[in-house]
Amino acid sequence: MSSEKKPERIPSREENFSEWYISTVRLAHLADYTPVKGSMVIRPYGYGLWENMRDQLDRRFKETGHENAYFPLLVPESFLLKEAEHIEGFAPECAWVTHGGGNELEERLAIRPTSEAIICSIYKDWVQSYRDLPILINQWANVMRWEKRTRLFLRTAEFLWQEGHTVHRTDKEAVEETLQMLDVYHDFLETEMAIPAIRGKKTESEKFAGAVDTYCVEALMQDGLALQAGTSHFLGQNFSKSFGIKFLDEDNTEKFAWQTSWGVSTRLVGGLVMTHGDDNGLRVPPRIAPIQVVFVPIYKAGLEGPLKEKIGKLAAALRDRGIRVKEDLTENKRPGWKFTEWEIKGVPVRIEVGPKDLEKGSVCVVRRDTREKQFLPDADAIEVVVKLMDEIQANLLKTATEARDANTHTPKDWDEFKQMIEGTKGFLWAPWDGTEETEARIKEETKATIRCIPFEGGEAQPGDKDIFSGEPAKHRVLYAKSY
Amino acid sequence: MSSEKKPERIPSREENFSEWYISTVRLAHLADYTPVKGSMVIRPYGYGLWENMRDQLDRRFKETGHENAYFPLLVPESFLLKEAEHIEGFAPECAWVTHGGGNELEERLAIRPTSEAIICSIYKDWVQSYRDLPILINQWANVMRWEKRTRLFLRTAEFLWQEGHTVHRTDKEAVEETLQMLDVYHDFLETEMAIPAIRGKKTESEKFAGAVDTYCVEALMQDGLALQAGTSHFLGQNFSKSFGIKFLDEDNTEKFAWQTSWGVSTRLVGGLVMTHGDDNGLRVPPRIAPIQVVFVPIYKAGLEGPLKEKIGKLAAALRDRGIRVKEDLTENKRPGWKFTEWEIKGVPVRIEVGPKDLEKGSVCVVRRDTREKQFLPDADAIEVVVKLMDEIQANLLKTATEARDANTHTPKDWDEFKQMIEGTKGFLWAPWDGTEETEARIKEETKATIRCIPFEGGEAQPGDKDIFSGEPAKHRVLYAKSY
Repeated sequence: MSSEKKPERIPSREENFSEWYISTVRLAHLADYTPVKGSMVIRPYGYGLWENMRDQLDRRFKETGHENAYFPLLVPESFLLKEAEHIEGFAPECAWVTHGGGNELEERLAIRPTSEAIICSIYKDWVQSYRDLPILINQWANVMRWEKRTRLFLRTAEFLWQEGHTVHRTDKEAVEETLQMLDVYHDFLETEMAIPAIRGKKTESEKFAGAVDTYCVEALMQDGLALQAGTSHFLGQNFSKSFGIKFLDEDNTEKFAWQTSWGVSTRLVGGLVMTHGDDNGLRVPPRIAPIQVVFVPIYKAGLEGPLKEKIGKLAAALRDRGIRVKEDLTENKRPGWKFTEWEIKGVPVRIEVGPKDLEKGSVCVVRRDTREKQFLPDADAIEVVVKLMDEIQANLLKTATEARDANTHTPKDWDEFKQMIEGTKGFLWAPWDGTEETEARIKEETKATIRCIPFEGGEAQPGDKDIFSGEPAKHRVLYAKSY
Repeated sequence: MSSEKKPERIPSREENFSEWYISTVRLAHLADYTPVKGSMVIRPYGYGLWENMRDQLDRRFKETGHENAYFPLLVPESFLLKEAEHIEGFAPECAWVTHGGGNELEERLAIRPTSEAIICSIYKDWVQSYRDLPILINQWANVMRWEKRTRLFLRTAEFLWQEGHTVHRTDKEAVEETLQMLDVYHDFLETEMAIPAIRGKKTESEKFAGAVDTYCVEALMQDGLALQAGTSHFLGQNFSKSFGIKFLDEDNTEKFAWQTSWGVSTRLVGGLVMTHGDDNGLRVPPRIAPIQVVFVPIYKAGLEGPLKEKIGKLAAALRDRGIRVKEDLTENKRPGWKFTEWEIKGVPVRIEVGPKDLEKGSVCVVRRDTREKQFLPDADAIEVVVKLMDEIQANLLKTATEARDANTHTPKDWDEFKQMIEGTKGFLWAPWDGTEETEARIKEETKATIRCIPFEGGEAQPGDKDIFSGEPAKHRVLYAKSY
């Protein structure tokens, strides 16, 4: 993988979406392959994006009463074995530590594929009385799920994520928490990432190994494939019974606790690229952009000093308004080269300052989303650029929502379903009879899965028949092929 | 380890410093043992401390031009083998992954004990021309060094840390970076942690496996043992030659790059406890305290509402001034119980509000560092408390510096050296002949090591004789027993 060469040029999305994606991720310096099979390196620009995403999520977690903590990386096999469905789901993907400190271990240890097992084994000591509840904890961590085929951010053996793990006194409270965190994700995706997402419930066959119910936010990428952007699980008492998390309730009886877990990962960086990117590279929503405005001088011999000075003043004025600014003042790269670089990196606004601008007291402001240019007097520039942050953010969400809606269809019958899923793909609404059999057959024939039973529009209407079996429908669901 | 019971009471530092330390860490809910051998759980209050430490360090790293990135957790054995001293130093402590995805791996992978090997194998592709330099990258990550005996924060198999890895064009620039980052640590320790630290250079036998020179900041704990609080390594060309990190310089010749690495870890949380703690628990410096001010109401039947209201107003006024405030309003714990809890957790200021304070328009402000009480009219309270933040911060640094200085000695001969190192321990200044033999003999006889050759006071004076061998001294060094 390290032997893969950088492409000479980025293919268009139309031409080869998958190649376009990988090239964009690599040329924008978000991430790259490494000599370690299955693992990527997240480069500073990509990590800067993740830091901003993390901070915006973390703020929301804290506002909803959660605290961060850190639990062990290694999980003894016997812990994983305690919850039967859980081990069945994760064992095939585990990396195992068998030796440490020069000796073979008595029991092999998994690198956490997710932390329910290790965290529950610790929570059991923390929970004794109803007074100890709720426990509202989140962890920012690396996890590992062995993968043979890797795709940067979307599928790698190791990735970064956050995982919330909460414990409650009642099922009602736990369900409320599960849904609250789904809303947190939905709001984060729309507000910060400008990614429209659909909330819904997973089917039995698609839910998290060990959960009672899994809820999700599903987004649609530009190539018509769905991306699961986040999940929130109501674990019921499955883990509390397996791990012995019980408490003495106010009524003096001993009860098993109710739990949730919820997470999003660095795959969201991939979702960002595939939602907003265009044939010139990334387009990063201002609210999470590591660099919101980049200044590029058009040097002319003798004017380097005055140009740098003018840019310095404008940059300081923007920083005072809370804008994250980069001054690209190097003299050994041509302006055109810099324009291309910052377009690939998707910086929301570029400000060009040349010799004529010194004379006229003006600048040229270029939006990355629409690539529109405006020539503005210095006096107006700051205010316009500050406003552009909101405008670009709103425009990216609008564009993405329109693209998603334009590629959401309701096939009239099974033939049209098959035709659509092979063609433009996208989200397909269809009535479902609620059986795992139908779901499996459709997956087999088309590779499409039920992404979710949406909260909005998921109820079957009188007379609805399953698109495949023709049986009476229980729900209207969203099908798609997915990442 | 999970079977260890919580102590009935915290022993005094005098009585049993080691027990006092562990009890304080556990009762303050900083961290605890887990059922996973060698691993701890960092609980929310401890993690909150680490988050504040991380943010203060991260700000300094960014101000000095560094960016964050993320590199793979697993390091193929062949990579570790490339730098001979490095593998010799770290191999005995490695945890090895031998199986993944159901199969035995062709090559075993170490969980990073530190990331030089994996990062250098990636940097080699990033560095081609002098234009690619410097690379100034930091990583926040977990690392693993197998340990049989564990002590919370101070010695655990897994810990959290940051590791800076930079690449430079010249040796001069790399040495400057090494020393700059040592200064960053020193400033962070004094300014944020209120921990006085001594800067110096490690001896050959104490330096990092693979470095040319290791610099360190050394602090003295209350029990007279030294704690290495941070290290900064000048790696020279050792790794660049082993991994092939070379570049075409401006003069058109190919050269190996010059490198540094530097790190501090969660063991600093332990250093904080052992520097500032007293027999009532932690004392946390305000600048990194997760909670700076805690309000405790003294409830009286019928007055719960007015007391909560008054506290709410004062808390809001403090938050407006940027203070991190906790209102401990629960009604099912007695005030005395709460006082003890927040003292153990070391919250810098406690404000008690009782029925009489409602009448008088007053509050009772209690400093954690000195335990002084002040009764203040509401009108003055906010201003006094805001000022107390700086006063307490300064007082903790002053107290710690005095304690360190009081336990820094200059034994007149070898007998006194031995006597002191067995007695109050502490830092011992002594002339050293510069030989590894003397260093090893002293270590053997007393368990004391040369903590560093201090930047200040480390030069030998005419006539100085080695305290052990009597040979002419090359340096004056600081000896101590250490964690």
